[in-house]
Parts: sequence; C-alpha cells; structure tokens
Amino acid sequence: MKVIESVQDMKKASQALRAEGKKIAFVPTMGYLHEGHLSLMKKGREAGDVLVVSIFVNPTQFGKGEDLERYPRDLEKDKRLCKGEGVDILFVPSAGEMYPENYQTYVDVEKVTKNLCGLSRPGHFRGVATVVAKLFNLVRPDYAIFGEKDFQQLVTIKRLVKDLNMDLDVIGMPIVREADGLAMSSRNSYLSQEERRAALNIYRALRAAKKLFEEGERSAGVLLNEAKRVIEIEPMVVLDYIKLVDVEMMEDMERVEDEALLATAVRVGETRLIDNIKLRKT
Amino acid sequence: MKVIESVQDMKKASQALRAEGKKIAFVPTMGYLHEGHLSLMKKGREAGDVLVVSIFVNPTQFGKGEDLERYPRDLEKDKRLCKGEGVDILFVPSAGEMYPENYQTYVDVEKVTKNLCGLSRPGHFRGVATVVAKLFNLVRPDYAIFGEKDFQQLVTIKRLVKDLNMDLDVIGMPIVREADGLAMSSRNSYLSQEERRAALNIYRALRAAKKLFEEGERSAGVLLNEAKRVIEIEPMVVLDYIKLVDVEMMEDMERVEDEALLATAVRVGETRLIDNIKLRKT
Repeated sequence: MKVIESVQDMKKASQALRAEGKKIAFVPTMGYLHEGHLSLMKKGREAGDVLVVSIFVNPTQFGKGEDLERYPRDLEKDKRLCKGEGVDILFVPSAGEMYPENYQTYVDVEKVTKNLCGLSRPGHFRGVATVVAKLFNLVRPDYAIFGEKDFQQLVTIKRLVKDLNMDLDVIGMPIVREADGLAMSSRNSYLSQEERRAALNIYRALRAAKKLFEEGERSAGVLLNEAKRVIEIEPMVVLDYIKLVDVEMMEDMERVEDEALLATAVRVGETRLIDNIKLRKT
Repeated sequence: MKVIESVQDMKKASQALRAEGKKIAFVPTMGYLHEGHLSLMKKGREAGDVLVVSIFVNPTQFGKGEDLERYPRDLEKDKRLCKGEGVDILFVPSAGEMYPENYQTYVDVEKVTKNLCGLSRPGHFRGVATVVAKLFNLVRPDYAIFGEKDFQQLVTIKRLVKDLNMDLDVIGMPIVREADGLAMSSRNSYLSQEERRAALNIYRALRAAKKLFEEGERSAGVLLNEAKRVIEIEPMVVLDYIKLVDVEMMEDMERVEDEALLATAVRVGETRLIDNIKLRKT
C-alpha cells in the first residue's frame, strides 16, 4: 500500500493509473475507520481495478463550536485496516495541502442541502461538496463509494457529479450497524457507557415508525409522532430533527405513498448522532 | 469539423480523444466570433493536438436586466470561422442540456471576484465559474485559452482550476484591438456609429494613464484622475468604474510600484464595455 501525502503526488499517481487503463475506485473518509468504512472498501475492490482511500478531516465542513479539533484520529490503526482491505493507495493530505494560502473556491449544491442537517449545520454541505469535488479532481475515480448513513451527503454528491458533468459513478452502500442496532460512526467513540445505551433508542424509534408504515399508516405526521414518542422515552436523547423526506430532493413529505427516507439527528450528551431508515412499499 | 450538441456526445468524444493520447486544447466562447476569439483558436492549435471550441450564451452569468436575450448570435458565420481556424470539434449545447431540471450546483470563487465587475454584476462570476467548471469536466482539456480583455474572468478561472485541483493549463492571450484601438468585443455590434466613435475614448484614457505611469507617476489617485479626465472629455461615455488593482488578487492599489492592472467598465448608450491595460515597470 502506497501512502501519499501531497496533492502533486496524488495527481501523478492517478495519471499513471489512468494511462495504464486501470479503473479507479475511491472511498473518501475522515478516518477512524470502522466496519462501515470497510464495507465501502470491499465494494470498491469489487468495482475497480485499483482502490484509493483518502483520510482527511476536512475543516471546511465543520461549523464553529463543532468537533473539528476533537474529532477522533488513529492513523496507524487506519493504515492497518486499509492494508487488510487491500487498499492500493492511501491519500492523507494535510489541511495546508488541500487549502493553501488564498484558497477561495467553494461548491454549493443548493436544493438538496436545504433541509435536515443543512438546517442545523449551515455551511456543512458546502464544505463537503467542495472537498469532494477537489478529491474527485485529484483522484479522478471511475467509482466513488459512500455510505447511506450520511444519506443527505450521498444525495448531495450525486447531484454535484451530475450537475458539474463529472465523469464517475457514485455508489451508495447500506448502513452498517452494531449488533444491537446502533449505526456505526466514528463519533460513537465519544459516548460514555450510559450514553451508548441511551443511543439505542434512535434506531428503535426509526423501526417503530417503519413498523407503523408497514401496517399501512401513510400520514407523515402520525409516523413522525410515533418515532418521537419512542425517542422521548429516553431523556438522554435530545432530538435535533426527525423528518420524512423524499429520497431525491430531501423535501418534507406530508404523506408517504411509495417511498420516503425517515431521517433523524439527535444529541446524546455532547455528541451529535444521525441515523435514517428507508420506508418503501413492498 | 464535428458539431456536437449534446452533453453525452461531448463526453464520449473527449473520452475517445484521451484514449488515443491526444492533447486537447479548448476555447470556450459565447459565439459571435471576432478576431479576438480567432487569436485564442490559433493559440489552441499550437498548444494541443485537437482543438475544441464551445459556443454557449450562458444564462447563469447574466443578471436581471442584462442583455441575455439580445446577445448577438450568428451560428452559421461562427461555424465558417471555426472551420477556417481548423477547429476539430464545435460544441454548441442548448441551455436545457447544460442546466436540466433541478439543476442546483454553483461554483463560487470568492476573493478575486469581489472587486471590479463583481461589484456591478452580482452573480456574474458565479455563473462564469460554474459553466467553465462544467465545460472543463465535459471537454477535459489539457489547455484552455481565454482572452485578457476579460482579465478578471481569466484570473477567476485560474483560481478555480488551482483551488479545485483541476488538471489543465489556463492560458491568457493579449487583447485584440481594432485598428483605431477599440478592444474587440461581440458587444461592439450594439454600438451606433456615434457611440462607436465615442467608445474610442476608453482606450485613449487607459493609454493616458499608462503614459503618466511610464513618466514616473506612482500614485494610483493621480493615475486614475488622469484616466477619468480623458474619459470625461466624451460625455457619451459613462463610467461604471476605473480602478488600479494588483494582477493576482484584483485588490485596489494605492501606489503602483512594479505592476498593476488598470481596468475600466463604461456604458456607451445602452452598451456596457470593458477594457484594461497593464502598467509594468520596465
């Protein structure tokens, strides 16, 4: 596994791979890798000839007062995990490499970023779209693989690629959960034992609403009330939002006929967690 | 010369060229071609193996009340001129091809677009950066050639390419002028005979300030006053701005020691014209 730190070297490496006719699969991450990330890498291995992973805790997607500084990092462990997944190139640029002096260009995906996390984290998706555009231009992948836990991010990146006529396929992969149902997240490492237990209520609430839907309930209000009722059983879980949105445009729905995304963000102590589940008529 | 109208066909054509190892030179235009554009094409022919020209009157870079609808168009003449310059591919997408339903992604280059035309045309450079990013992703050129008449645009595109880690060289080419000094522009076709004569005062004013600089004057205030004095001799020429800025960041300068751009925008009747000249210590 080749570890690349500079933007120039990454550019050259990907040019050389393309000249050889290799198909490049790419998994961009912020590191502190878990089974969720590894599932993306496995998919990448299948999709392309060569697997590139990036680890970059991107400062432009964190707001003031968010957890940029304390975001968990363990590069040595991440390297071991990447090697284990057969990663060919690990790209670990510094912030100075990605945002040199006088950096000033940002990419805005406007509509799909308005709702959900876009409401609670102004500027977040602008930072995401910008760094992903940069990484795509550096790595020039044929396939890029993202997890569905950050569903709004996945939709944003699909839009970015389509709108800016970028030449790659964006692949979304299912959420990977702990045995007890908690969606895997690097931020789970922030949780105390008590918080960790309380956090189980998030997925419990999503499943409760899904169950109602599967029993025939179509009113978003009723479905959301059921989810909220379950969330509120656990006072340590403080709701940021819970919404039913269409899976393309991330707009609120009043009724769910065929398909919707039930998405939530909560705080457990100091930790912000997100999760979602698809409701789909079978 | 191949004429391509669809985004998909343009993508395929450029993929095929890259697979053959051809270097692509690209000249994006809004059509109604003149000698200025042709000079860019000549440079493109020299720089690459294959020359791609686009003609697209990009709606997102026009503000309300600007001249989008009446912008001059003559595709048949443009095709003849392109053939004459040995253009290999002429890309002429429709607005619907470039901005389909639910289009929502925009590229902002923040600092270098603040001053000059950025002050008078809010949103203009956002539209320019967005369409150029899209065109670059579709054509994937090795070289892109722009004229220095739109100097702030050239600086904006250089920043865009650098910041987003795009893999191409942006080449700026000198302003081409009519025999009497008027900078060539598709918008010159709007001018009445009387306006056309009055417009000569623009370049006259730039040269007057440059002469003072060459005689040793270093105060931006004094240099600009000289340019304004000459502009005001002609009451049909109404000043939007005239400024001395540094050539990298487009920021106002108080003194010009080594180098500056003297840039102006005026109205002559209904027509907005821009021009500029470099002051450089010899």
